[in-house]
Amino acid sequence: MSSVYWFEDRFVAKEEVLVSPDDRGYYFGDGVYEVFRVYGGKLFEPGAHFERLARTADGIRLPLPYSIERIGRKLEELVEANALREGTVYLQITRGSAPRSHPFPPDAKPVALAYCTEVPRPVAAMEAGIALAAVPDIRWLHCDYKTLNLLPNVLAKQQALDAGASDAVLHRDGIVTECSASNVMIVRGGTVITHPANNLILHGVTRGVVLRLARAAEIAVEERPFTLEELYGADEAFITGTTVEVTPVVAVDGRAVGGGAPGPVTRRLQREFAAAIGL
Amino acid sequence: MSSVYWFEDRFVAKEEVLVSPDDRGYYFGDGVYEVFRVYGGKLFEPGAHFERLARTADGIRLPLPYSIERIGRKLEELVEANALREGTVYLQITRGSAPRSHPFPPDAKPVALAYCTEVPRPVAAMEAGIALAAVPDIRWLHCDYKTLNLLPNVLAKQQALDAGASDAVLHRDGIVTECSASNVMIVRGGTVITHPANNLILHGVTRGVVLRLARAAEIAVEERPFTLEELYGADEAFITGTTVEVTPVVAVDGRAVGGGAPGPVTRRLQREFAAAIGL
Repeated sequence: MSSVYWFEDRFVAKEEVLVSPDDRGYYFGDGVYEVFRVYGGKLFEPGAHFERLARTADGIRLPLPYSIERIGRKLEELVEANALREGTVYLQITRGSAPRSHPFPPDAKPVALAYCTEVPRPVAAMEAGIALAAVPDIRWLHCDYKTLNLLPNVLAKQQALDAGASDAVLHRDGIVTECSASNVMIVRGGTVITHPANNLILHGVTRGVVLRLARAAEIAVEERPFTLEELYGADEAFITGTTVEVTPVVAVDGRAVGGGAPGPVTRRLQREFAAAIGL
Repeated sequence: MSSVYWFEDRFVAKEEVLVSPDDRGYYFGDGVYEVFRVYGGKLFEPGAHFERLARTADGIRLPLPYSIERIGRKLEELVEANALREGTVYLQITRGSAPRSHPFPPDAKPVALAYCTEVPRPVAAMEAGIALAAVPDIRWLHCDYKTLNLLPNVLAKQQALDAGASDAVLHRDGIVTECSASNVMIVRGGTVITHPANNLILHGVTRGVVLRLARAAEIAVEERPFTLEELYGADEAFITGTTVEVTPVVAVDGRAVGGGAPGPVTRRLQREFAAAIGL
């Protein structure tokens, strides 16, 4: 087990990390986070994660307590201190501690927390594919901000598990947005289709990597809203995310998608992704 | 300063209350809360607060760790231990601690926290009235659940303060819902109008009390959506909430409402409310 945490700019044992009940992360979910993938002891696509972190922090007007460069260095040191080879780094920054009151506290100092977790690549799911269950997307209108207000994501995920699926595919009035913690793409007539990166979805780092790999492989890409019906009838479907990488979707709401097996475009993108991470 | 907290079913000093970083309240805002008013050392309308607590907990499928009766008893003991006469009791219950993962953790025990704060009645604001600023309501579609996912409320409140107002009045495409932490009502032609208690607003305890008092005083009440334009042109407007009680609104977006002074229906409801709390 990895056990060195980065907390308030010190490297400490997990047991020493205790949060004030006045932390605004606890009262309001008033904070931002990122989950970085580590392959071979190195952060994967750190620039894209830090760009999103800065954009979310700016969006919710949370001043980062340290420069991005410094945070990046500390996360590298954290990976080394934990001797992590394959896993994730979770980083969270809240607006700090102050007596509970909605307005931004004038004197609070943002609180940063980061730790490592060993996470193997989900080889079985990537090989066999997963099933999704459609769940209404009732989230707020800034899903592009990666904040700690994650209750609707939690509820959607659990609802999907209860329905026997691996994850929820969220939709607003029949328009598919994304999954509870990943983006979703379909393939129709050889074209990869996924929701535009606007305020209704998280702009996934893996989403960006996969679209780049698709274009480089001369696979057509359309960023446009698509419907649940298009998902049900797609030639192929897959999700993308930091830990799921490119995982095929073989069923939605109990109906087979793409004949119930991962399709050729999905397989091609999996191979491209594996190459991109140095496998 | 009040300093005895109720935490994990023990009465402890505030300094002893330290939260695990793995608390799902911290990662996901995965919890429920209530703010009770205390007048003369007694909880005001505890039944309505506990009914809402139970409804929210049920809505997000969070099993309360103790019976409502037991929680009520503990909060009374807390008020007594802190010798609180006039103030609030904040109660929060999260889904408990577990390694970060969206699904409900099978073995986590929900964590309850409660404490008292001395809060005087906002006499000056209730006398003079306040100004509001209109802010788009971008929250999720279960605003009737009183959960810890409060970031949009925080951002709206701060935006209103920055605009020189006391609070934000939220609207969805011009339909007024509520304020950042209170309900809003207008008076037109002697009728009190407020948004229906559906999924788009919090069902305020004070809202319920005030509507009951209005009906008892033979003031007409309409629970229907109204527009920002209706608010701008209202004869009177006021907000209701646990700490604000009945506070007149005298301006919105820099425009005087109701001639820029509290109106007679608002004054009448303030008197009725004062009588209801034993003044």
